[in-house]
Amino acid sequence: MLSGSVMITGCSRGLGLEMVKQLVKSPSAPRVVIATCREPNKAMELQQLARDHSCINIIKFDVVDYQSLPGLVQQVDEAVGASGLNLLINNAGVLEKCPTQMFGMPLEQLEPQVFNSVMNTNTTAPLMLTKAMLPLLRQAAARSEGPLSVQRAAVINMSSILSSIGDFVFNPDIYGYRASKAALNMLTMALAKEYGKEGLLFVAVHPGWVKTDMGTTAAELTIEESISQVFQLLDDLTEKHNGLLISYTGAVVPW
Amino acid sequence: MLSGSVMITGCSRGLGLEMVKQLVKSPSAPRVVIATCREPNKAMELQQLARDHSCINIIKFDVVDYQSLPGLVQQVDEAVGASGLNLLINNAGVLEKCPTQMFGMPLEQLEPQVFNSVMNTNTTAPLMLTKAMLPLLRQAAARSEGPLSVQRAAVINMSSILSSIGDFVFNPDIYGYRASKAALNMLTMALAKEYGKEGLLFVAVHPGWVKTDMGTTAAELTIEESISQVFQLLDDLTEKHNGLLISYTGAVVPW
Repeated sequence: MLSGSVMITGCSRGLGLEMVKQLVKSPSAPRVVIATCREPNKAMELQQLARDHSCINIIKFDVVDYQSLPGLVQQVDEAVGASGLNLLINNAGVLEKCPTQMFGMPLEQLEPQVFNSVMNTNTTAPLMLTKAMLPLLRQAAARSEGPLSVQRAAVINMSSILSSIGDFVFNPDIYGYRASKAALNMLTMALAKEYGKEGLLFVAVHPGWVKTDMGTTAAELTIEESISQVFQLLDDLTEKHNGLLISYTGAVVPW
Repeated sequence: MLSGSVMITGCSRGLGLEMVKQLVKSPSAPRVVIATCREPNKAMELQQLARDHSCINIIKFDVVDYQSLPGLVQQVDEAVGASGLNLLINNAGVLEKCPTQMFGMPLEQLEPQVFNSVMNTNTTAPLMLTKAMLPLLRQAAARSEGPLSVQRAAVINMSSILSSIGDFVFNPDIYGYRASKAALNMLTMALAKEYGKEGLLFVAVHPGWVKTDMGTTAAELTIEESISQVFQLLDDLTEKHNGLLISYTGAVVPW
């Protein structure tokens, strides 16, 4: 079992939707799964899952709508109860694309509004959601004296091999996505340094190159394969991983 | 001599002002020094320097005013002439501070507007200025077949040891500054990969912990010591440094 309560952003499709699927189909499903997305009315598959599995709470949430955070915290608090929130997975993210290439955007075409929007969604939003959820994560952490783990209290930031400066792969001109995920890795470490002592685990995860809308059909892994391996990885995370960027294979990825 | 033409942002005080000072006092001063700042009318020391040294062109420029970039490029083009721009130093930057500590801001007090503003100034702005100056940098690069160097065509991004995830120093809660400079390091590498083949050198530099307004009086180095060593470093940069984060001491800093 991953955790008592799990919250995941960006669950209408892709990796987020698959996470919800695999969680509720597991023989030891979490007590509460909070699945957020921007437009629940359009998330048909997620709605159907929620009808079949009463542990799923769908909450409408746009990760960059910071004014909605107090209301969101209240809803999550009610859903998880006195046990607090065990696991937050910051999954929602965007990548800048132009029509002429598979990923990215040549610098000549990259406008500051596009770059800042990617940074806001991929970097600022996970930090602000973590900030908002800190009381509920601390509540979960305080209920046990055990080692750091996703069972106790953790924040998983979905990152990418494209965030690695040291292991630089593919074409360079994915400036916004690369910069935003490198910044997210830094935040993961800073939060681990600050809150690890309170029992909170923070890990950035590279889910592989996956056949999602973002990863395109040219990708190496199916969504099912990726999430299955990511969940195995999460179950194995301990204090020694706190602050690191880890591949779905279990390997530490250089910054 | 560092270069034929040098452009530096944030020259009203601190490291930027000292760069201008040391450049014009050097026995082989650049032909053109373009010093930008937000409020030239208040930059008294810079104004005095410009009266004494005709190579200094002061240009009013707020690095996050992206609409002003076309006009800025025209002014710089006129100042540097057919030789193009040899060296752009992205120096202007900000750090979030709260009254109760020397650096940074506890997560509980960090608002998304503050975080995004730091990201915009420290990450987006250098990228957008580099984009705008690409034609002038390429012009300079194309005039020689020599190896990569700041004499030929280069962009120096002023970064920090606080950008290093692997060599994590001081208190964690400098989220905006840390994340923005980690992202800037990533951009430095991406640009090096993309434009190195056209003769452009990109390096991120850690200037040491310096007694500036940002570094506070507790810092280790005087502004003069830092810039003197940074300029020695810049003179020695070659192709093997392209994309890296280098300390003022010459050491490669881990990401």
